[in-house]
Amino acid sequence: MTTTGTHSRTDLETWALERAVELGAYGPVAGGNPRVGCVLLGPRGELLGEGYHRGAGTPHAEVAALAAVPASRRHLLAGGTAVVTLEPCHHHGRTPPCSRALHEAGVRRVVHAVADPDPAAAGGARWLRSVGVEVSTAAEAGLAPETRSRAADLSRTWCTAVRRGRPWLVAKTATTLDGRVAAVDGTSRWITGPEARSHAHRFRAAVDAIVVGTGTALADDPALTARGPAGPLPHQPRRVVVGERDVPASARVRQGPGEWCHLRTRDLGGAVTELYRLGARHVLLEGGPTVLAAALRAGLVDELHAYVAPVVLGAGAGAVADLGVRTLEDAARWRTVDVRRLGDDMFLAAEMRRPVTEGEA
Amino acid sequence: MTTTGTHSRTDLETWALERAVELGAYGPVAGGNPRVGCVLLGPRGELLGEGYHRGAGTPHAEVAALAAVPASRRHLLAGGTAVVTLEPCHHHGRTPPCSRALHEAGVRRVVHAVADPDPAAAGGARWLRSVGVEVSTAAEAGLAPETRSRAADLSRTWCTAVRRGRPWLVAKTATTLDGRVAAVDGTSRWITGPEARSHAHRFRAAVDAIVVGTGTALADDPALTARGPAGPLPHQPRRVVVGERDVPASARVRQGPGEWCHLRTRDLGGAVTELYRLGARHVLLEGGPTVLAAALRAGLVDELHAYVAPVVLGAGAGAVADLGVRTLEDAARWRTVDVRRLGDDMFLAAEMRRPVTEGEA
Repeated sequence: MTTTGTHSRTDLETWALERAVELGAYGPVAGGNPRVGCVLLGPRGELLGEGYHRGAGTPHAEVAALAAVPASRRHLLAGGTAVVTLEPCHHHGRTPPCSRALHEAGVRRVVHAVADPDPAAAGGARWLRSVGVEVSTAAEAGLAPETRSRAADLSRTWCTAVRRGRPWLVAKTATTLDGRVAAVDGTSRWITGPEARSHAHRFRAAVDAIVVGTGTALADDPALTARGPAGPLPHQPRRVVVGERDVPASARVRQGPGEWCHLRTRDLGGAVTELYRLGARHVLLEGGPTVLAAALRAGLVDELHAYVAPVVLGAGAGAVADLGVRTLEDAARWRTVDVRRLGDDMFLAAEMRRPVTEGEA
Repeated sequence: MTTTGTHSRTDLETWALERAVELGAYGPVAGGNPRVGCVLLGPRGELLGEGYHRGAGTPHAEVAALAAVPASRRHLLAGGTAVVTLEPCHHHGRTPPCSRALHEAGVRRVVHAVADPDPAAAGGARWLRSVGVEVSTAAEAGLAPETRSRAADLSRTWCTAVRRGRPWLVAKTATTLDGRVAAVDGTSRWITGPEARSHAHRFRAAVDAIVVGTGTALADDPALTARGPAGPLPHQPRRVVVGERDVPASARVRQGPGEWCHLRTRDLGGAVTELYRLGARHVLLEGGPTVLAAALRAGLVDELHAYVAPVVLGAGAGAVADLGVRTLEDAARWRTVDVRRLGDDMFLAAEMRRPVTEGEA
């Protein structure tokens, strides 16, 4: 690619990556695959095609972008550049490898923001180099750091899950200002208001599975479905109960839509690893206090979603059982990523503190 | 006042009230007096002067506005209009009555948004009418409802305090996500981060008094001063300890700057009424759990300020002792007025649910 007018190659590729991130974000978080966007540029920086991955079983972003190039411009792919948020895959899954598709289309340069952490799919960059394609990470290509960071964010939780073979686990709490999840008599519907509940349901529709302990399944009999004002939302997460006690056939968690399963174990770490094996990359833990404490103690929680209602109870069950923390210094400090008002309630999302640059290629 | 160009009298007076609210907001919340703004208009709607009350012992808003009228335009006050956020006072305090000052200046019409709830100061409107001045509430004058509502808000907490002879009480909590104010070993410094603590200090500087129980005074030994990065803030609230136990001479709450006092009683309602008698209209309750529970049970709390840190402790002292609430339906639901992020922490301000229109004249 040569420079067009006053735009340098770096400027054009930064713009293309920015656009690829924007496209990738239309993809679903749930479904087991990462969110990826791809922009194809001609030899003079012309926009030839763009695409994103719409979910498991549909074309990868690169293939979608190639398919979007009009027949009349397809010849411009020879000598062109593919800018992708994630390294092109190199395996035959439900779709053929993207590495091969890009090479066959004549693409001469590939810029990708994040290395593929999936051992089964990785190797795309190496193979492309071996057949003579110029491959560069976004950092090597000198693209704008903020754009690279947004690209890394797009698939960050998925990459974390894949690198360690365990889903990204979000733990949700819905409490009063004094940290209660129920009053003394056990009543807990509803602590938070309709806006907070609706937010929580939309998040349910963005994960692969929802986990509760048998304690919560038996005491609260939650449906664990993702519902909107007009009924069930399009994507239903797998409903998972973890624990050794039986779940009666009449339990709401066992009714449709979507799948449910019961993992008869006390080993929460083993249970979420099993969910990974079943394809889950994003999992939501919805309590109760014992399971949440177990997850926190085992270091399984990647992110907290806390809904807090302007209510003070003064007594009743707390959100989390004893963690063994005795002094303030020993408590984990989370990194807040979002605070917002939802009706009368407030919402906080926070992640475990990890190195910020982790995940970028 | 006649109409000027295409602006109706209502438009002009709405604009003047909007401006009066803006000015009044520069005044201090602390200091025992309400925040008030005043705008003076000439017979053709000309802006003649504007003013606001800068705190106890300084001129009232009307007098400040009259003083701001240039000598060359003073004659225009005859036949002019005063637009004030609060009914002009009619008593000799540290300053002469505003009712008389407006009349003597020749003002022919007075529009005020809120009636003076102070029995000692009220009667300004009635007296002005008796001497032939046209007096109208902002509602009677047909001013824009949003502007009237902002005007009512300006002195709302003060008016509430004066109407019932008890200060507006704000209860503050600083907790973990699970509602703890300390770890098992009692450590509590610091649960919240520097941004939240700085916010809390600025709020201390906006109240007349800070109250803690003897339990907190003895266990935490707080200074209760309002501090900024460069040392004590200009206004220091009175530091008040409530309870029957002794407070040692070495306690930090007994050190300067500003005043402190010890109310040796278990009757929190009596204690805050005593603070009203001492001139306090805005009081901040900073705990601990026993005093907060007592205040909530007695219905003394008008507003909650909750700082919540992204920390989970799992055990340790809760923010509030038992309130006697057994079922969720019996818990008070507060009306959220503000949610914001402060560094890694979140902040929620909520008020007791009261009729919205209360306070407007």
